[in-house]
Amino acid sequence: MTPVVVLGIDPGLACTGFGVVLVEGRRVTALAHGDIPTRPRAAPAERLHRIHTGVAEVLALHAPDSAALESLFIGLDPRAILAVGQARGVALAACGAAGVASAEYAPAQVKRAVCGSGRAPKEQVGRMITVILRLEGEPPSEHAADALAVALCHAWTVGAPALRAAR
Amino acid sequence: MTPVVVLGIDPGLACTGFGVVLVEGRRVTALAHGDIPTRPRAAPAERLHRIHTGVAEVLALHAPDSAALESLFIGLDPRAILAVGQARGVALAACGAAGVASAEYAPAQVKRAVCGSGRAPKEQVGRMITVILRLEGEPPSEHAADALAVALCHAWTVGAPALRAAR
Repeated sequence: MTPVVVLGIDPGLACTGFGVVLVEGRRVTALAHGDIPTRPRAAPAERLHRIHTGVAEVLALHAPDSAALESLFIGLDPRAILAVGQARGVALAACGAAGVASAEYAPAQVKRAVCGSGRAPKEQVGRMITVILRLEGEPPSEHAADALAVALCHAWTVGAPALRAAR
Repeated sequence: MTPVVVLGIDPGLACTGFGVVLVEGRRVTALAHGDIPTRPRAAPAERLHRIHTGVAEVLALHAPDSAALESLFIGLDPRAILAVGQARGVALAACGAAGVASAEYAPAQVKRAVCGSGRAPKEQVGRMITVILRLEGEPPSEHAADALAVALCHAWTVGAPALRAAR
């Protein structure tokens, strides 16, 4: 079975997390994960540009077959929706530029896939990701763990052959 | 007095309007205006990428000294905030990439600047823009008119010397 690579993205203006996983049949391993932080005192346009180039670099480096993001919880404060929405638009545009299709999962779907329950506490996501992907060394940041979680959710939801066919 | 160029942007997923004005002292003339439409059936990532490249093209062609956008009316439906926010983030990122500072004006501020009242009906903006900028031929689209209006608002609010100094 041809291995496929999935990029998970957790967009945010202050910090965008990313996680890249390799899916070989039922086996999923982490290839990379990390944060794209932006300078708090920089203008929003400059910070959004940084997110764009950061996501574009990850896409160029790992050439994922598919990308996945959490859908936004629409019950959030409108200002939070705007801030995350702007970062999200930029991350999606970078995927569009690279010709990488992106999928969306509700936060509860991601938690259910990774923790077994859609109501699992936030900290459990990081712990489960570390166990499932057998991560060693420093635990991933919260954003990177969320990005790995949505990548894992996507990999398990659609399965590797479907991911490849979706290109 | 050195002339300055201001780019107004009215971001939207379906269509992003732009308007470029030249400010020479108190005289403001329109250099260009138009729409960046996206394909309705394309994936959001592809549409957002199209907005990014479209705004980048306008920036490269007209080399504005400054950009201006309307701030989002936060009372909108959360889904609308997300959709416009994503397009807005992409337009801002393109400004960031070009090193062009961007300013924000509340919708009522723009209407007040152009129509003399913050509560002027939407159609009046297009009519006033056509008169003030002595536009000939086809009237600008609604998005392009809104983009020209925010550019004009910015030009009048900060004045040409301040625009140049802000670089």
